[in-house]
Amino acid sequence: MRAIARDLRALLGDDAVASGSIRHYLGDETEGRGVLGRADAVCLPRDAEQVATVVSWCYDRGVPIVPRGGGTGYTGGAVPIEGGVVVSLERVARVRSFDPLLWRIHVEAGVRTAELRRIVRESGLYFPPDPGAAEQSQIGGNIATNAGGPHAFKYGVTGSWVTGLEAVLPPGELVRVGGAIRKDVSGYDLKSVLIGSEGTLGIVTAAWVRLIPAPEVSLPVAGFYRDTASGASAIAAVLGNGIAAAALEYLDAGTLAAALATYPGELPADPRFLVIAEADGSAPEAQRVQAELREALVEDAEAIHSPASPADVAALWRWRHGVSIAVTAQRGGKVSEDIVVPVDRLREAIERTLEIGARHDLPTCSWGHAGDGNLHSTFMVDANDDAELARAHAAAEELFALAVELGGSISGEHGIGWVKRGQLARQWPPRLLELHAAVKDAFDPKGLMNPGKKR
Amino acid sequence: MRAIARDLRALLGDDAVASGSIRHYLGDETEGRGVLGRADAVCLPRDAEQVATVVSWCYDRGVPIVPRGGGTGYTGGAVPIEGGVVVSLERVARVRSFDPLLWRIHVEAGVRTAELRRIVRESGLYFPPDPGAAEQSQIGGNIATNAGGPHAFKYGVTGSWVTGLEAVLPPGELVRVGGAIRKDVSGYDLKSVLIGSEGTLGIVTAAWVRLIPAPEVSLPVAGFYRDTASGASAIAAVLGNGIAAAALEYLDAGTLAAALATYPGELPADPRFLVIAEADGSAPEAQRVQAELREALVEDAEAIHSPASPADVAALWRWRHGVSIAVTAQRGGKVSEDIVVPVDRLREAIERTLEIGARHDLPTCSWGHAGDGNLHSTFMVDANDDAELARAHAAAEELFALAVELGGSISGEHGIGWVKRGQLARQWPPRLLELHAAVKDAFDPKGLMNPGKKR
Repeated sequence: MRAIARDLRALLGDDAVASGSIRHYLGDETEGRGVLGRADAVCLPRDAEQVATVVSWCYDRGVPIVPRGGGTGYTGGAVPIEGGVVVSLERVARVRSFDPLLWRIHVEAGVRTAELRRIVRESGLYFPPDPGAAEQSQIGGNIATNAGGPHAFKYGVTGSWVTGLEAVLPPGELVRVGGAIRKDVSGYDLKSVLIGSEGTLGIVTAAWVRLIPAPEVSLPVAGFYRDTASGASAIAAVLGNGIAAAALEYLDAGTLAAALATYPGELPADPRFLVIAEADGSAPEAQRVQAELREALVEDAEAIHSPASPADVAALWRWRHGVSIAVTAQRGGKVSEDIVVPVDRLREAIERTLEIGARHDLPTCSWGHAGDGNLHSTFMVDANDDAELARAHAAAEELFALAVELGGSISGEHGIGWVKRGQLARQWPPRLLELHAAVKDAFDPKGLMNPGKKR
Repeated sequence: MRAIARDLRALLGDDAVASGSIRHYLGDETEGRGVLGRADAVCLPRDAEQVATVVSWCYDRGVPIVPRGGGTGYTGGAVPIEGGVVVSLERVARVRSFDPLLWRIHVEAGVRTAELRRIVRESGLYFPPDPGAAEQSQIGGNIATNAGGPHAFKYGVTGSWVTGLEAVLPPGELVRVGGAIRKDVSGYDLKSVLIGSEGTLGIVTAAWVRLIPAPEVSLPVAGFYRDTASGASAIAAVLGNGIAAAALEYLDAGTLAAALATYPGELPADPRFLVIAEADGSAPEAQRVQAELREALVEDAEAIHSPASPADVAALWRWRHGVSIAVTAQRGGKVSEDIVVPVDRLREAIERTLEIGARHDLPTCSWGHAGDGNLHSTFMVDANDDAELARAHAAAEELFALAVELGGSISGEHGIGWVKRGQLARQWPPRLLELHAAVKDAFDPKGLMNPGKKR
């Protein structure tokens, strides 16, 4: 270990290799389920060229390379399971150019998601993806996982906004695919292959991102229901009435039990299901859509809550984004999986998540992006209790089987990473798995890029 | 040739192999520049299983397979250059399921684009992609080329709407990737690799397509300008003022000269540049945005035209979609290339297109999707004049060089097909070209899928 760190210091300069404790770089959100790695060195390159240099150095020597963004992932994708060199993008974080009049920005991978959203918002523009940990996550990590969030329902996931990528590919070459262009059907879509590849094919160092004019206002409506059935009916009513909501979220009874104490609004007596829908656009348009949403959500609702001021709207979303932490706080850890189902199977997926948890004697809840059929099915655990963790992992296997049975996917937001390794075979036939492996082999013939992940 | 047709008849039934003249299946829009193929047989499978059967039969025997949609392509992508079996998807054209309350439809590849748009529109839903030849083109061909159209500016290209694919992959296996789900980050994005792969990796047999509530109204504004400079300023004003147009199109002087005779509205004295922008949404929202568009477009305009009735709006778009044919009619043929540039280089690309044409002594014009920086740079030719065709092809090479010089792409809509073979190397470094070839090799190890294309 010392030799690798020493050689990298000589190669890149002392500042580009972490000294002191590197504990921070060995885990991600899966620490709450007992996953932690070990690394031979942690590299902090200053720019894309240094990323290429370190990849090249490692590739020549057969040293595993583990790219790292904000460390907010739920699959252990950034955890150096097999040792090697962690390449953290935190200092590759410049805004290379911002052209507000042309609706585009060119940013390096280490720019934090929320920072990107703020920068463009100050010029009246909008970068829609809003994954849960946007203050900590980096745009490069969002691209590597193709992150979503509540507003993916209307606006699509991160990849929908990326028009070009700069990336370091093995054996250490800095390449560019796409750019400041909004269309490109020249070669096979290698940009989309890199997006969501979880650092197993290369390291994204920068992105060209398209933007849109920011909605003038965002007006959510929160409807509380007595049970999952009536909440699911409300969700179906929003879709069935053709209301173009910007977001359409749900939280079930167990989630509410964990999170309601800090809800920024009045509550009915015993809410067991919450639907949050949002209207956005110009003020009159958002008001019109909000009225439609209220109408669709009010039937069977115990209560309807429509925050109106920007501060109250922000408070509601801040609370919503804090739900994951509130659930973790229940027992100190959680095994939370991001399955996706066709939206007409959402109610069944919510109910069967609870059945699975009950069979394994685990406190269970789910919440997520109802309009996208994307659940965060969650078993609350004590991460120090090995037997409990083992039950949760067995329960997670059943969740994956459920997703596939319902015509869905084992992952809508988090990716495969380390903790879902081997699960893709539930979903894909051998021919697609073979192609998956062939893509990996073409990009990374030595298998050194984030080994053990995304497979 | 007869033996292959006879064997395929025995395999699939007489109705599944074309008899009589197969001339119709040997060309596409590149006939106007002298491209025409030859085929050993034309197969008309009834369903996806028959597509798999014919692919398997051909693959076993080393016979090239050329998938064919509506035959409206501009690159010779559907032309059987090296002979083999044309597999036309025209009979694989069922709507497998349509769930209007869930905003989704599952269609087979042979469904015509305009038909798909009509079916969903009747239930208040919208499939935004509107490529030029939507009445003839098929959704499978649109997916194979990742087709765009005017409304891609707001709504994205075909691939943005495809949540799942069914496809036949060599050596003849029917697989499914994605489905009726709106998110999926499990495996590498093989769905996006197939989208835009121009039939060189497999044959798309069906797609799961997501939809959105249809805009209540569409309100275009057409602004006529005295020259490219003032038209380009108007386009910049729409963007610079942050107006969320649904479409933002342009037509230059040469295009107008070919097409204005049938323009469905009043004209100023000598218009040399036309910008068409469109507002859509609810009636009040579209009216609000239309007013903003008028304000942005009116400065320097010779005239502004805002059709209001649905019939007048439809007439304007019908005219717009007829522009390509009107340009062809000038000299009987055309070499038209779909380059893309960053939108701030649009004016330069328009002007340099004219310079290139002048240097090669060719009547030249361009029109296209201004907001996407996507030109249809066009040299009007007599397809029977070999010397002229040769000059046009030399001019096209300069166009591709121009696109790359300006930071753009050699193709925004049409793909590479046959006529742009070899051009990708202008744009991609050797490492990406190597990966492109590796993807092809993984999907199609014998190189029998649409040989000679997309490379």
